[in-house]
Amino acid sequence: MATAAAPVWSVDPRTGKPREQVAVEATAAEVDTAVRAAHAARAPLADRAVRTAFLRRAADLLDEAGEAVIEAADAETALGPGRLTGELARTTYQLRAFADLAADGAFLDVRIDHADPGLAPPRPDLRRYKIPLGPVAVYAASNFPLAFSVPGGDTASALAAGCPVVVKAHPDHPATSELCAALLRRAATDTGLPEGVLGLVHGLQAGVDLVRHPLITAAGFTGSVRGGRALYDAAAARPHPIPFHGELGSLNPVVVTEAAAGERAEQLGAGLAASMTLGVGQFCVKPGLVLAPEGAAGDRLLTALTAAVSNTEPGVLLDHRMRDAFVDGVRTRAELPDVQAPVTPGAGGEHTVSAGFLTVPAARLTTEGPHDLLLEECFGPVTVLARYTDDAEIAAVLARLPGNLTATLQLGEAEGAGSDGTGRGAALLAGLTPLAGRVVVNGWPTGVAVAPAQHHGGPYPATTSTSTSVGGTAVERWLRPVAYQDTPPALLPPELREDNPLGLPRRVDGRAEGA
Amino acid sequence: MATAAAPVWSVDPRTGKPREQVAVEATAAEVDTAVRAAHAARAPLADRAVRTAFLRRAADLLDEAGEAVIEAADAETALGPGRLTGELARTTYQLRAFADLAADGAFLDVRIDHADPGLAPPRPDLRRYKIPLGPVAVYAASNFPLAFSVPGGDTASALAAGCPVVVKAHPDHPATSELCAALLRRAATDTGLPEGVLGLVHGLQAGVDLVRHPLITAAGFTGSVRGGRALYDAAAARPHPIPFHGELGSLNPVVVTEAAAGERAEQLGAGLAASMTLGVGQFCVKPGLVLAPEGAAGDRLLTALTAAVSNTEPGVLLDHRMRDAFVDGVRTRAELPDVQAPVTPGAGGEHTVSAGFLTVPAARLTTEGPHDLLLEECFGPVTVLARYTDDAEIAAVLARLPGNLTATLQLGEAEGAGSDGTGRGAALLAGLTPLAGRVVVNGWPTGVAVAPAQHHGGPYPATTSTSTSVGGTAVERWLRPVAYQDTPPALLPPELREDNPLGLPRRVDGRAEGA
Repeated sequence: MATAAAPVWSVDPRTGKPREQVAVEATAAEVDTAVRAAHAARAPLADRAVRTAFLRRAADLLDEAGEAVIEAADAETALGPGRLTGELARTTYQLRAFADLAADGAFLDVRIDHADPGLAPPRPDLRRYKIPLGPVAVYAASNFPLAFSVPGGDTASALAAGCPVVVKAHPDHPATSELCAALLRRAATDTGLPEGVLGLVHGLQAGVDLVRHPLITAAGFTGSVRGGRALYDAAAARPHPIPFHGELGSLNPVVVTEAAAGERAEQLGAGLAASMTLGVGQFCVKPGLVLAPEGAAGDRLLTALTAAVSNTEPGVLLDHRMRDAFVDGVRTRAELPDVQAPVTPGAGGEHTVSAGFLTVPAARLTTEGPHDLLLEECFGPVTVLARYTDDAEIAAVLARLPGNLTATLQLGEAEGAGSDGTGRGAALLAGLTPLAGRVVVNGWPTGVAVAPAQHHGGPYPATTSTSTSVGGTAVERWLRPVAYQDTPPALLPPELREDNPLGLPRRVDGRAEGA
Repeated sequence: MATAAAPVWSVDPRTGKPREQVAVEATAAEVDTAVRAAHAARAPLADRAVRTAFLRRAADLLDEAGEAVIEAADAETALGPGRLTGELARTTYQLRAFADLAADGAFLDVRIDHADPGLAPPRPDLRRYKIPLGPVAVYAASNFPLAFSVPGGDTASALAAGCPVVVKAHPDHPATSELCAALLRRAATDTGLPEGVLGLVHGLQAGVDLVRHPLITAAGFTGSVRGGRALYDAAAARPHPIPFHGELGSLNPVVVTEAAAGERAEQLGAGLAASMTLGVGQFCVKPGLVLAPEGAAGDRLLTALTAAVSNTEPGVLLDHRMRDAFVDGVRTRAELPDVQAPVTPGAGGEHTVSAGFLTVPAARLTTEGPHDLLLEECFGPVTVLARYTDDAEIAAVLARLPGNLTATLQLGEAEGAGSDGTGRGAALLAGLTPLAGRVVVNGWPTGVAVAPAQHHGGPYPATTSTSTSVGGTAVERWLRPVAYQDTPPALLPPELREDNPLGLPRRVDGRAEGA
């Protein structure tokens, strides 16, 4: 007798009640079917013009269906129409940016070295470019039902690279996932691609089956350290290991100098409150640890932060499991010796949570001990203000931090200008750089601009690779180089032909062409 | 009572006799010391001008000591002065090429996006470049005591990136390793760097300790599937996993079409014999499987191959363990049903091996079975000629192959020109591309030119990553991006300053500067 398929429910986090059954969890056979369909879509997706059109069409269809998409996402995530409208705009912008990238083809990294029979040994003709790896597994994030989920950056960059995708939906937004997948599949058929170019599966075990599938060639993941590490380990343990680009977790430390606090404590308190409570504290770049000075200036910051956080309305987390984890997490942290809670974070109403923050003497964080819990990410609207007495204590805490997506520095005016005579600004910037993939000065880490110079990644556990998951270079994760040696012109792919029929940017004999 | 340190002997493979005790195996404490010294060398190595000078000085010192280096390497590896002279030239060329790369700085991949307050949301100023990961572990290869060992491509590319290196010496050439390390350290002190910028350890356990060391941030490896996979697994199992760029093993298939054999069977037989016996068959790109047609043309190729291989003198393998593995490996393969040995490979004299080759009907390789052994690399002067009856059989064998460093295609003239009316040339090229990182047409895979368009890598197990270990882009393996957001000009590293004081190539607001 076959086991009944496990139902996948869409749940309203505002009430904890199931809304509708959206799907069933995928069996191993269904995962296999999705992967094989993706594998079969490689050939039609190999045409860059086709995938450019596909990505643009996907963006258009998502925009057209915007109202329905936002409604579905809000009903499942409680992120609110305002935030979701912005996230949809970011998502379609991203799809179009990757379409432009696919059209441009610079990421093919074409390099041609002509034969040189005069060298010892003689050099053959070598022509190299990058080709897609093959089907990619994408693990959707809880906290971005669009921009880091089915139609998100991992999917868009993989498709732009020429890799079909199978997404493992996040259980917090299965209906939104199904809706977006349907739109992407319609965009595929509208542009002459098979539907299988974008697969979707639900279920924890399906996610494990997916990363182990022999035809899957790489994976992208956004989520927790625990879940991400388990999948990373599965990817590495395969008979044929595959690249696993995971964004796992980040504390996102902030250092506020005495001078910065002295000059603008009120502004810093308000800014920090806004950043840590944005999206109910559910951003991967939420500032989770703030090194603030002891003394009067730091006290003013604390007062401003207290006022601003106290004014924050209770919010709904993405699901009740997260709500429980948040409530437990902040309670356990608040019970540590010398930890105080000027604004107590925790349960709000039956389904909500209240924002708050904890304080601790930085000295408690300079050596191993129970306070190390404060150096672990706590998902939700809470941050930890660690009060330091001098620069040495800042350095001692920073030395104990794991890798991060971001590190932030709040400097006084003279420190920023390098005119304070201490070199503190440069020293702190140098101290934060090894800790993170993005260093923010006199701002807040929330808000990750999609731009060519962006980097969203960082030392482990922030990410499991040295690549970025945001911005154009994210496409590089899904490609591998291949060099053709002494290949007759008639057989060369058009990308590598001498006359450059596709007008690609190239490096010829070591020099950028046209440069 | 402390255990006595295990001695490390230099052994003469021509006699199997120990030559001298070179060192002792490193204890965990000694590995730790070497890694800490490398870690401490990061700051002085951060100056690109210094590391440029260092790499050039290293090349000069190696050239100056060339006679001694070649003598040491020949005594331990029996590769012969001719080959080793060429390898030394390749090694110093490589060091100078990476010095040029370090001086140029294009690999820093500088990208600047100016703030755009008009966007929604407003875009901050973002400036990104790549920074060195930190100390790198390099595992030296048996078969290239110079070019893929202490002063080889992994070391040179890591140093060019700004990463200090600790090399785990290969037990086949400990004296050469010590000599080269001493020269590199002298180059370091000559150019103002600490000796610790280049560490050297001996011993199997030291190699494991090295990849597990918390301060090691990445690893490069050239060697066997078994050894490489064990270290890859150790790297992935760390609390903080690190990138492991391993080159593990490769069969390097060759397809000879009926037309190619018909037009130049004699030339192909002689060329194949030369390629598979080069360096006593100890190249990672040795052609290990040749798909040749049944029938008269293929018979001519076989005859030519037989003649050429029969004329090959017995040779000395790198060590006696490899000799035993070769003798066992070819015997086991030769005993398989339907396998014949027109020239029997195996033991030559007491310390030598004879080259040879096996034939098998390709039909034996199209389904799983004991003949799969023929699809595994056999290190040494042997290849397997698989005789096929039609294109479908070629495709069926190719579909069963693991990843490779190279794949080679021998075409008839009309096939190469695409004028034979069958499209066979393009179809075979497309069929070989997924199998390898370099596709060679009408040539042989041995000989890996150091050039910008080169790619030495391929699908697993050829390599464990999508990067190359030869050519300029090998430097990318040791870097990670970091983006600075809204950072005051006075604090920016010079690489990211608006006025570009270092004259670096950059992409500004999405466009290559000057383009």
